[in-house]
Amino acid sequence: MEYSIFETEIKIRPDDIDSNQHVHNTKFLDYVLAARYEQMINNYKMSMAEFHERGFNWVVSSTTINYKKALKLSDKIVVRTQLVEIAAAQSRVNFWIVLKESGKVAADGFILYTMISLRSGRATRIPEDIIKRYSV
Amino acid sequence: MEYSIFETEIKIRPDDIDSNQHVHNTKFLDYVLAARYEQMINNYKMSMAEFHERGFNWVVSSTTINYKKALKLSDKIVVRTQLVEIAAAQSRVNFWIVLKESGKVAADGFILYTMISLRSGRATRIPEDIIKRYSV
Amino acid sequence: MEYSIFETEIKIRPDDIDSNQHVHNTKFLDYVLAARYEQMINNYKMSMAEFHERGFNWVVSSTTINYKKALKLSDKIVVRTQLVEIAAAQSRVNFWIVLKESGKVAADGFILYTMISLRSGRATRIPEDIIKRYSV
Amino acid sequence: MEYSIFETEIKIRPDDIDSNQHVHNTKFLDYVLAARYEQMINNYKMSMAEFHERGFNWVVSSTTINYKKALKLSDKIVVRTQLVEIAAAQSRVNFWIVLKESGKVAADGFILYTMISLRSGRATRIPEDIIKRYSV
Repeated sequence: MEYSIFETEIKIRPDDIDSNQHVHNTKFLDYVLAARYEQMINNYKMSMAEFHERGFNWVVSSTTINYKKALKLSDKIVVRTQLVEIAAAQSRVNFWIVLKESGKVAADGFILYTMISLRSGRATRIPEDIIKRYSV
Repeated sequence: MEYSIFETEIKIRPDDIDSNQHVHNTKFLDYVLAARYEQMINNYKMSMAEFHERGFNWVVSSTTINYKKALKLSDKIVVRTQLVEIAAAQSRVNFWIVLKESGKVAADGFILYTMISLRSGRATRIPEDIIKRYSV
Repeated sequence: MEYSIFETEIKIRPDDIDSNQHVHNTKFLDYVLAARYEQMINNYKMSMAEFHERGFNWVVSSTTINYKKALKLSDKIVVRTQLVEIAAAQSRVNFWIVLKESGKVAADGFILYTMISLRSGRATRIPEDIIKRYSV
Repeated sequence: MEYSIFETEIKIRPDDIDSNQHVHNTKFLDYVLAARYEQMINNYKMSMAEFHERGFNWVVSSTTINYKKALKLSDKIVVRTQLVEIAAAQSRVNFWIVLKESGKVAADGFILYTMISLRSGRATRIPEDIIKRYSV
């Protein structure tokens, strides 16, 4: 299955800028996090809060990010994400942080998320209805 | 003189939330910073970058903030600011962080900014043309 | 009553530095927070976790901070705090962020904390045994 | 060549904790950054400031991190790093974030750094004397 690519605009904040006058490298990943939270609401129609209500949580198990262009405070960016695989207790999401005007990629990478049970704190099989909801 | 109140919408990010499940108290001040940066561009027509080009910088000399309501990730907020005084090397700005829907104030306070010369690192008199530009 | 002044060393991290090449202004307050957490353990012998276990939480109701000197990554600093008043549901703590070598004050101010009940989310009277514990 | 493993103790701060009550995932990478800055001074005897004075800067080109255990505020941690390769304009550094008492690995991964010229902003060949200095 080929999953949809979702896109969220993120506004760079002055407190994201580090001593190199660019967006601090770890903030790129906070932008991806913010984009996914919005996409959970807008595109999967199941917010993180709703996951919690059902006793689930998503945690990051692994991240790879490649930096291609520095970002300045005045840059306008969008975060694109695409689910690549969802099975057992994990989902893998590719992402691209893209300059809105030029379409150039400032960074790309992927995140491996694991679903855990809030009760046990352990990895748990992703329920079928959630896999279906994510199959868009 | 009675200065205008300017308003900027700020999006709360998941990485702003702390262990109390609310926006971390110092992030409120980063929201005010972000709002002021935007208002410098949109309302005073002189971005921070333009200040730097003229050899100036604004630094925070004093901050007072009163917290009235906790903010959740799902809250929609605006930051309102109003210049109260601008003279010699300093400007004083009142702010209110407001829940967009209810209009309730989540926090208010003021920031005292000092203009410094980038060359000397010292406080410097705010030029007349900048005071005029801020007199809106 | 004259309360003790407690002191905690804080290490400045590279991600605390902003585009002005100095510690970002809101991080000063995160340093005070970190110092208080340590002092709760070391000086009051009651960690924040223990407060939570008893159904209490401390939240910030008001902060005032005056910036006197910029901090660089290489600066060694200590945070000094002193309880000024503790009564009803609130405590007021003065703080000084001090350069370790010169003893110069980089920032000072105070924070007004309110004790809340975790169950109700509302302000609650500070129990007598906690007031005693803080009377050092 | 087999390079040394260097170790730096990092103190977790309350503002590093996110809504899951654990250290926020991107802060792990800020801990690695802080450890490397200290190791530049203590182990390579060339601080980031000295790199800047020579017209160089290190930027992150790629990061991979695997999360194995959540970190709590009370956890004591060390960051171990080991240079794996340094050639042309890049160095690759493996890292492990380790619980001090149990020795268990909370996260591991690697970072690919690129040396850039401050003047051109472009990748530049790492000078021989710096490669030597890093060959410990």
